[in-house]
Amino acid sequence: MKALIFDLDGTLIDTVYAHVFAWQQALAEAGLPIEGWRIHRRIGMSGGLFTRAVAREAGRPLTDDEAEGIQRRHGALFRELLPERRPLPGAVELLGWLRENGVPHGIATSGRRPEIDASLEALGVPPEMVVVDRGDVLRAKPEPDLFLACQQRMGVGVADCYVVGDAVWDLLAARRASMLSVGLQSGGYGEDELLAAGAYRVYRDAGELHRSIDELGI
Amino acid sequence: MKALIFDLDGTLIDTVYAHVFAWQQALAEAGLPIEGWRIHRRIGMSGGLFTRAVAREAGRPLTDDEAEGIQRRHGALFRELLPERRPLPGAVELLGWLRENGVPHGIATSGRRPEIDASLEALGVPPEMVVVDRGDVLRAKPEPDLFLACQQRMGVGVADCYVVGDAVWDLLAARRASMLSVGLQSGGYGEDELLAAGAYRVYRDAGELHRSIDELGI
Repeated sequence: MKALIFDLDGTLIDTVYAHVFAWQQALAEAGLPIEGWRIHRRIGMSGGLFTRAVAREAGRPLTDDEAEGIQRRHGALFRELLPERRPLPGAVELLGWLRENGVPHGIATSGRRPEIDASLEALGVPPEMVVVDRGDVLRAKPEPDLFLACQQRMGVGVADCYVVGDAVWDLLAARRASMLSVGLQSGGYGEDELLAAGAYRVYRDAGELHRSIDELGI
Repeated sequence: MKALIFDLDGTLIDTVYAHVFAWQQALAEAGLPIEGWRIHRRIGMSGGLFTRAVAREAGRPLTDDEAEGIQRRHGALFRELLPERRPLPGAVELLGWLRENGVPHGIATSGRRPEIDASLEALGVPPEMVVVDRGDVLRAKPEPDLFLACQQRMGVGVADCYVVGDAVWDLLAARRASMLSVGLQSGGYGEDELLAAGAYRVYRDAGELHRSIDELGI
């Protein structure tokens, strides 16, 4: 039995551009201005990894307190910018179909609770669904920990899991976890970038994945 | 003598992500919700073309008044989100170098005044610089009008012009104008997408273009 492990932001929920903008503002306020496209290309990493990478590039190392402060500010700005979460096309229907057909599936996200709760609510997933977040593992994407933790909690084999994500980090982490992956363009990466990072298949969004699910042997 | 025609948003100024977010909010308020990545992939088109394309996709044609109202609301939200404009790395230095070395250059943007004034001010360009905006031509990108008007006002030949842009629309319009083009990744498109749209060369940002300017015969 094949199983699906979903990323959340940009894969199931349309949050990437609000995240980019909130990070850009939080970092600029902390004296670390950085271009939007460089942030976009790092969405999907953990906030901690991301903040440290930016600081390193700016040549100004941050204390742990500073890095945490920037992350908190990002969270506040994000909730302010995007009080309502909108599922990406086909996401709610695909998750419902997987439930009805008994296909094991879960979510593995670099986000944390309570930040991700509004997204889970908008998707209408039941409380028993396997959701692994940044707080559950030691290391975030592109480390494989989130996907491996999700796979273990679903009780399926590594070889049976497909990772579904919109970011290069999802696809790289999937390869580290020895899992095949599906790239979705709904986070703003182009098809070629997703294929170059190792995607087994690329679709526009969750809706197209749903219509093409046979291609994965599901 | 070779000449350079620059796009503005995402090429010289870091505004793409604020534009995406402002469009998304303005369209949602008008009952036309659309995913961020689909907006991102259309930034660089004129606001009018863009608004009509979205409405067509949503299956709800807009009156001219409605379309103009959404554009006005986008402008207001954009100025609210991004009161200060930040030049992309190397943009100010590259424009200064072109001025000092007498290389003909201009800006051709799908934006309009007064919306683009803050960006031109942040770039510190002199008032005599050739700037063609949406209001100066009948048709916006991917039509070639903006680039041809800029070329004519600079008084150089079509065959001598390179278009420099971050969006697929810039590169497509350059081909319509029979000009070579340079793609910059600073608007969030991947290298492959820019090459696929016909870029003669692709660089990360204006700074890398500046360091590589010999490759264009300048």
